[in-house]
Amino acid sequence: MEGHSGGGAEKLARLRAELTRHGAQGFIVPRSDEHQGEYVPPSADRLAWLTGFTGSAGLAVVLPSSAALFVDGRYTLQAKAQVESALYAQRHLAEEPAGDYIAKHLKPGEVLGYDPWLLMPGEVERYRAACGQAGGKLKPLESNPLDAIWKDRPKPPASPAVPHPVEFSGKASAEKRRDLARKLAEAKADAAILTSPDSIGWLLNMRGGDLTYTPVALCFAILHADASVDLFIDRRKVSIALENHFGKEVRISPPGDLGAALAKLGAAKKRVLADPGSCAAWIFDRLTEAGSTIIRAPDPCLLPKACKNSVELEGARAAHRRDGAALTRFLAWLSAAAAKGGVREIAASDKLEEIRRGGEHFKGLSFPTISGAGPNGAIVHYRASPATERVLENGNLYLVDSGAQYLDGTTDVTRTVAVGNPTAEMRDRFTRVLKGHIALASCRFPQGTTGSQLDALARRPLWEAGLDYDHGTGHGVGSYLGVHEGPQRISKTGNAQALLPGMIVSDEPGYYKTGAYGIRIENLVAVTELGEGGEGGKKLLGFETLTLAPIDLALVEPHLLDADETRWLDAYHARSRKELGPLLDAPARAWLDRATRPLSGG
Amino acid sequence: MEGHSGGGAEKLARLRAELTRHGAQGFIVPRSDEHQGEYVPPSADRLAWLTGFTGSAGLAVVLPSSAALFVDGRYTLQAKAQVESALYAQRHLAEEPAGDYIAKHLKPGEVLGYDPWLLMPGEVERYRAACGQAGGKLKPLESNPLDAIWKDRPKPPASPAVPHPVEFSGKASAEKRRDLARKLAEAKADAAILTSPDSIGWLLNMRGGDLTYTPVALCFAILHADASVDLFIDRRKVSIALENHFGKEVRISPPGDLGAALAKLGAAKKRVLADPGSCAAWIFDRLTEAGSTIIRAPDPCLLPKACKNSVELEGARAAHRRDGAALTRFLAWLSAAAAKGGVREIAASDKLEEIRRGGEHFKGLSFPTISGAGPNGAIVHYRASPATERVLENGNLYLVDSGAQYLDGTTDVTRTVAVGNPTAEMRDRFTRVLKGHIALASCRFPQGTTGSQLDALARRPLWEAGLDYDHGTGHGVGSYLGVHEGPQRISKTGNAQALLPGMIVSDEPGYYKTGAYGIRIENLVAVTELGEGGEGGKKLLGFETLTLAPIDLALVEPHLLDADETRWLDAYHARSRKELGPLLDAPARAWLDRATRPLSGG
Repeated sequence: MEGHSGGGAEKLARLRAELTRHGAQGFIVPRSDEHQGEYVPPSADRLAWLTGFTGSAGLAVVLPSSAALFVDGRYTLQAKAQVESALYAQRHLAEEPAGDYIAKHLKPGEVLGYDPWLLMPGEVERYRAACGQAGGKLKPLESNPLDAIWKDRPKPPASPAVPHPVEFSGKASAEKRRDLARKLAEAKADAAILTSPDSIGWLLNMRGGDLTYTPVALCFAILHADASVDLFIDRRKVSIALENHFGKEVRISPPGDLGAALAKLGAAKKRVLADPGSCAAWIFDRLTEAGSTIIRAPDPCLLPKACKNSVELEGARAAHRRDGAALTRFLAWLSAAAAKGGVREIAASDKLEEIRRGGEHFKGLSFPTISGAGPNGAIVHYRASPATERVLENGNLYLVDSGAQYLDGTTDVTRTVAVGNPTAEMRDRFTRVLKGHIALASCRFPQGTTGSQLDALARRPLWEAGLDYDHGTGHGVGSYLGVHEGPQRISKTGNAQALLPGMIVSDEPGYYKTGAYGIRIENLVAVTELGEGGEGGKKLLGFETLTLAPIDLALVEPHLLDADETRWLDAYHARSRKELGPLLDAPARAWLDRATRPLSGG
Repeated sequence: MEGHSGGGAEKLARLRAELTRHGAQGFIVPRSDEHQGEYVPPSADRLAWLTGFTGSAGLAVVLPSSAALFVDGRYTLQAKAQVESALYAQRHLAEEPAGDYIAKHLKPGEVLGYDPWLLMPGEVERYRAACGQAGGKLKPLESNPLDAIWKDRPKPPASPAVPHPVEFSGKASAEKRRDLARKLAEAKADAAILTSPDSIGWLLNMRGGDLTYTPVALCFAILHADASVDLFIDRRKVSIALENHFGKEVRISPPGDLGAALAKLGAAKKRVLADPGSCAAWIFDRLTEAGSTIIRAPDPCLLPKACKNSVELEGARAAHRRDGAALTRFLAWLSAAAAKGGVREIAASDKLEEIRRGGEHFKGLSFPTISGAGPNGAIVHYRASPATERVLENGNLYLVDSGAQYLDGTTDVTRTVAVGNPTAEMRDRFTRVLKGHIALASCRFPQGTTGSQLDALARRPLWEAGLDYDHGTGHGVGSYLGVHEGPQRISKTGNAQALLPGMIVSDEPGYYKTGAYGIRIENLVAVTELGEGGEGGKKLLGFETLTLAPIDLALVEPHLLDADETRWLDAYHARSRKELGPLLDAPARAWLDRATRPLSGG
C-alpha cells in the first residue's frame, strides 16, 4: 500500500480533453482487461495508472466536473491511502453502485463513453439504463482514450507459451476439442467464442507466462463444431514446438484478426455461442452487427475444466504432498524462529517462498502470499509491505495464506499458528473455525447439491456463539491454472452449480477480530463419489482432502470437539505424518511428529 | 382420486369450436384463478372441469389436433387415474415444460389463445417465445372461451366477509395503510395494485369465506399513497358492520370497475407498483395501455404480513396450545384404538377434525388432512379416499399432517407414530429425521441469513446415510390466513429473502420409502431475536418452537442422539406437558406423561 503517485490531476485533465475528441464527456474505467479475468498485466492496469489504486477489483467513473472510484469493503482503507480524495470521491462498489452515481451526476445531454472490450453486456445494459435515467447517453468508443494519453504504458506481455503435456493434463487436446464439438452440435451451435485464457489453455493443453500468478497466454479462440480451433494470439508467443503440439486443427492468427473472423461467422449466418459472463460486449456487438444468431450460454470449457480427470487428480495429490512438505518445513522453522523473536511478516513469506522454490515442478506462486501477524491477520486480503508489516510477537496469532503453481497442480492453503501462549478466546475461536472446517470436509451429500447449500455447515459452530466471517467458504481451483475458478462456489449467495466429482474447492472458514487477530484454516478438497450409497439412483458424494499440513494443536480446545471431530483431526494428522514424513529431513520430521500428536488415546 | 368424469372429448370439441370464434386455434388452461393463489373456488377450477384433473398444480395446452396436461411428480399417478389419456398426453411440468411442447406442436401461422387474467407477465413472455419459435402467435382473448361452454359452472363464491378484530391482528388497518403509504412514497409510487386476497385481508383486517381452507374474501384493491384504498369486491360480501370497520378511507366498488380505475391511474400518468409475481398479465396490460409508469416490485403487504407482531405471536402461541391439546387427545385415542385394530385412515382424520372442532376460536381446517398408513405415508401429498385408504396395521407407521384455522392463528403439524413394534430401520430413519428437525429448530444464525442457507442443517443427518427427502424443509405460515405464505422459505432452491423476527415457518424434514412407509416431523417455529449476541452490530436470531405435541419415543433410537439433542427432546416434551397438561382431562394427561417421559435421567 504505497501513497498516491501524484500527477493524478494532470492525467484527469488530459483524459477529459481526449474524451472530447471522441464526442464524449465522461468515461468508465473498470479494472478488467479484454479477458475479464481476476489478474491483468501491467499494460492493462489502466485503473491503477489513472487513479493510483492497485486493488484487484474496482471501477472509476470520470465525468466533466467530478470523478468517483468504486471499491469494495476489502479495499476501502487501501484506496484512501492510494487515491487523491480531491480528485475522486470514494464509494462502496455494492452499497452505492456506479449506476446510481451516473444517474445522479451525469447531466442531460452528456455522453458517457466506455471501452466495449472492457465491459460485459450486462454491465453495458446497466450503465445504459443509468445514463437514460440522467437524460444522457452511453456510447462505446472506437479506441480507449486512456491508451492515447498513457505515454509510458508498458508493452503487452509476450511470454512464450508452452505445451502442457498429457502426463499432466490427462487428456489430449484433440479429444477435448472433439468432446466439446459434440456439445456444440447438441446445442445447435456452429461455433463458440472463447475469451478466457484459462479456458483456451485448458482446451489446447497450453500454458503461458503473461500473468504473474496464473500460467496462461493471453489470447482469444473460436472453437468450431468440426472440433477445429482458430487461435488469435501474438505470434511471438508461439514456438514451432507449440505449433507441432497443436497440429493442423488449430489455426493461428494475430489477435487483430478476431473481428474479421466474427464478421465471417455472421456473413455465413452461423449460430454462435458466447458467454455473457466472460465475453466482452465488443464480441456481442460484432456478432450482432454481422448477423450471427447468438446463443448465450456458459463457456463450454468451464465444466470439463472444473471436473478434474484422474490424471489431474493424481497430479493434485502429488503437488499437495510436495507443497505440504514445504509448508511443514516452514512451520517447523517458524516455531523455532518466532520463539527466538524478531521474525517479520515479509521475511516469513520470503522464507516460505524460498522453501517452495526447491520443490519439483514448481513454477511460481499462485497468488500473493498473505502473511499477517496480530491485527494484520484480521485484514482478510492483507498484503504485507515494509510500511505495514509487523514482527511476530509473543501472544500473537500469525496467519499465512499461500499457494503455488506446480506443473501437476495448483495449491492454496492457510494455516494460523500461535506465537507463545494464545488466550482462551483465541483457542475458543480457532476451535470453532476448525469445527466448521471439519463439518464441511467430512460431509456427505447427494448428487445435485450445490456449494451454497453446504456453506452453513462451515459457519454453524461460529453462529452458535454469535460469530461469523464476511467472505465465502470455498472457491474452485484449477489444475496448474487459476487459483480461483468457477463455476462452482461454496458461499452464502445462491449458486445453481451442483458440485460434481473431480471438482477441487477450498474449505476455508475463518474468524477475524478487527485490531486483534485473524484465524483461517484452509485446505483444498476434491469432490469424490462415495460408492453407490445414495438412494433413488442418486450418487452419494463427499470430499477428499488434498492439502496436508499440521493444524496448530496449541490453538485447539479439545473439550469443544466431539468424538467424530477428534477422530477426524487425529486421522488427518496421521495421514499428514505418513505422506509428508518421507519428504522431510529428520529434524522437520521430528517436529511434525510432535506437532501432530493424537488428541485421543487411539 | 376418482376415475375420470367422461365427456372429455365433447368438452374438447366444444372448446375448439369456441376458439375459432376468438380467432384462435389453441388455448392455455392453467390451474390458477385471477388471484394466482394456491386454492381456487369451484367456479374457477376450469382445469378440473375440462380435464378431470383435480390436483393443486397443473396446466393444459389444447391445440387443434392434440392436447397435453402438465403436472409435477406429486400428481403423476393421480393424473393418470383422472384424465383420459386418449385426449391428453401427460407431461412432467418441470422436465418437459409446456413451452417446449408449444414450440414443437403449434403449427406455423396458428394462434394460441390465453386468458390474460390467469397468467402472470413472465409466463406470457415464456409462451410468447415458444409460439414465436413455432412460427405461430400468442394472443390474449377478451373472455375465457371455457366459461362460454361450461354450462353448469358454479357461481363464484359470495360468502360474507367480516372484520378481523385488532385483538387478533394487533394493529389497526389505518396504521397498516399509513405505514405502507410511507413505503410507497419512498419508492416514488402513487399507488400499488393488490390482487392477492390474503394481502388485502391483512391490510384491511378483513377475513372471508370464499375458499375452503384460507379465510379470505376474493377481491382486488388499489392502495394509494394517501393511505386510502379502493376495494373491488362483490357488494354482497360486505355488511354494514364491515363497512363501518373500514371507515371512510376504504372506498368500495364492484370488481368490474377495476379496469376503469386502472385506466384513470394511467390517464393521470401515475407511477403504479405491481408485483409480477402475483398480479395477472391483464393488470400489466391495462396499466401499460393507459400510460402508467409501472414499478415492478414485490406486493408491499408481503413482508409486514410475514413478520407477525407481538399480538399475532401471542395468538399463535395460544392457538398452538389449543391445537396441540387436540392433537394430543387424538394421539392418546389413537394409541388405544390402533392397538385394538380396525382404524381406517379417513376415520382417523375425521376423529382428529372432530376433536379440533371443539376448540375455542376454531374456524376450519387449514388444508386437507394427510392421513396415511404404511405405504400411503410415503406419498408426500397423499389424500385418503375410500378407494385408497388403508387400515392402520401392526408394524405400520402412520403419518398425519394436519392443521387448523383459529381466529388467533393458523396451525400445521405432522406427527408420525408407530403402530405396534417398528423395525430397526424405521427407528434409524425416524431418529435421523428428528436430528434434522432439532438441528434446524435449535440453530442460531446472524441477521441476513436466508432459509436456503439453513436447509442443509435439516438434511445432514439423512445425507450421512445416503438419504434425503424430495420436498422443501419449511414454508411461511400466516396468522389466521394462508397456511402457505411467502416470501421466506427454507429449501434447497435459492431464495434471497432473509429470515426476519416474527416470521413463522415450518420445520418439516422427512423420509419416504416408496411402497413401505413415510416419516415427517413438522413443527411451526417463529423467528426470534436472541438478545444482542451478534457481532459487528448484527443481531443474532433463532427459532421459538410454537407447535406442542409429543414426538413418538417408540421411534427414537436414543444412542443416535447426542447429549444436546437428547436435552432438546426432553425439554420440548417437558414444555409440552406443562403447557398442554392443563387443557387435558386426566386420562389424556396420564397418557401424555407416559408418552413424554425423559430419555435422560435429568
